[in-house]
Amino acid sequence: MTPSAPQQVKEDLERLVPLLEAAYLKPFAQGEAPSLAQAMRYSLEAGGKRIRPVLCMLSAEAVGAAPEAALSCAVALEYIHTYSLIHDDLPAMDDDDLRRGKPTCHVVFGEGPAILAGDGLLTEAFTVLASDATLPPSRRVDALQVLGEAAGWRGMVGGQALDLEGEARTRAGEPVGLSELALIHRLKTGALLRASMELGAIAGNATREDRAALRAAGEAMGLAFQIQDDILDATSTEAAMGKRVGKDEGRGKITYPLLLGLAGARKALQEATERARCLLLSLPNPHSLTALATYLSERSA
Amino acid sequence: MTPSAPQQVKEDLERLVPLLEAAYLKPFAQGEAPSLAQAMRYSLEAGGKRIRPVLCMLSAEAVGAAPEAALSCAVALEYIHTYSLIHDDLPAMDDDDLRRGKPTCHVVFGEGPAILAGDGLLTEAFTVLASDATLPPSRRVDALQVLGEAAGWRGMVGGQALDLEGEARTRAGEPVGLSELALIHRLKTGALLRASMELGAIAGNATREDRAALRAAGEAMGLAFQIQDDILDATSTEAAMGKRVGKDEGRGKITYPLLLGLAGARKALQEATERARCLLLSLPNPHSLTALATYLSERSA
Repeated sequence: MTPSAPQQVKEDLERLVPLLEAAYLKPFAQGEAPSLAQAMRYSLEAGGKRIRPVLCMLSAEAVGAAPEAALSCAVALEYIHTYSLIHDDLPAMDDDDLRRGKPTCHVVFGEGPAILAGDGLLTEAFTVLASDATLPPSRRVDALQVLGEAAGWRGMVGGQALDLEGEARTRAGEPVGLSELALIHRLKTGALLRASMELGAIAGNATREDRAALRAAGEAMGLAFQIQDDILDATSTEAAMGKRVGKDEGRGKITYPLLLGLAGARKALQEATERARCLLLSLPNPHSLTALATYLSERSA
Repeated sequence: MTPSAPQQVKEDLERLVPLLEAAYLKPFAQGEAPSLAQAMRYSLEAGGKRIRPVLCMLSAEAVGAAPEAALSCAVALEYIHTYSLIHDDLPAMDDDDLRRGKPTCHVVFGEGPAILAGDGLLTEAFTVLASDATLPPSRRVDALQVLGEAAGWRGMVGGQALDLEGEARTRAGEPVGLSELALIHRLKTGALLRASMELGAIAGNATREDRAALRAAGEAMGLAFQIQDDILDATSTEAAMGKRVGKDEGRGKITYPLLLGLAGARKALQEATERARCLLLSLPNPHSLTALATYLSERSA
């Protein structure tokens, strides 16, 4: 009998997260800047959902490879996601003091060290992937290029810059529209989620068609993820989320519920999730990824 | 007749800097976050000595390759150097408002955008190098690994973290010794200068011996460079340097002149420069690099 989606996701996380966690602290075992390594480890160990590395390893499995084939990609993605949280939480950016239920990096270590911890994790992401001797160099440079474009100024960093600008304009009374909101999210959150699945495809040596399907499904799942994030910020509690909620509206952030209403946002979430599930159908082994897509659209934190 | 060192350096800079400047703004021609691209361009165009990219291209030439072979490495090095200046200048770090004679990035664009401009340049460095189809993938991953280790928490970022800690300890009256100062500089400045020459070796397809010689010469030149930087901070003027001077002592920074005296620092500078020149002698075509080593040890800004 095929397990239910939540059961499947639970089993996959129990299988894959330990692989990630056995690998991602290894580079920080030795070094000449121990307090910097401590700050990087602190943010990595704060936990979180590990969605990007799991998406990456499940994508490799979906095209018939072992999850270990995508392990360096998974580690790199988690480094980049963690660095982006550290920098986004800084006083000069979103100014958050709580993340994953713990004080944020700059609250514990200071602003300068937190900036450096983020810089160190970002750099280590590329270093770990470039050094993975289990992947042929041609696939490593392919993955590095996809990762760099998704994480950089054409992707995640660009999205955060547009988000900062959008907030300032909203506070000044200028309207931010749906297409602009969609662009911000596509860059800020969507690009790295999409890259997570494309990196799994590259590491798993996918066919061109399977890679394109994973890329498109990743785009749809990224959108669904962000809509659900906005819905949760508007409706959930701090205890359930492990971070401040209701902040979006307070600081003039434009969100899907604000633009579409809560019912409209939920409808857009369902549509994006369904699109992802359809795209995944063509893959050799899509079951776990499909279950995760369903699970993410129904998550409560 | 062989030109004098300053004449040789002048000719090399006139030849190589335009190659760099024709290449390094290209990725920022298009994009969906124009103000972010503007902040990145602002800091890139502020000028500077372009030492790292020139060292890189001259190292490729020293082992018999064309400087263009090392162009993507040179661009990546300049992105990383520029990002490191943007982040180091932030109020939470060294708090500098003037750099290369112009207001620093966060003074012009704000702190949040400056952090993002640095993140964008760092990410673009790896992206540009990973995407250089003129280099075989095996050499690209080799170069990416060397660059990542030199730039990251085991190198430059680690050095900056130790430097911040050292300043705090000095202000608290705890002594910082010569070996600790040497470690900070070896990581903070030396690692990327050494990598500049090693990347030139990799891009230029150097023999194992030539690569080792360039790496060791880079280590010595990095040390010389930092000693001269400290000497200039203690003795030069703001107008000549294009940045604040005399700040080191004011904020409790330990420097070579402070530890060795000015004469002792000058002697250490000469020794390191001589070591570099000797190591370069074994290369097929060392003349320009040797001239640059001499020139850097005598520079006045």
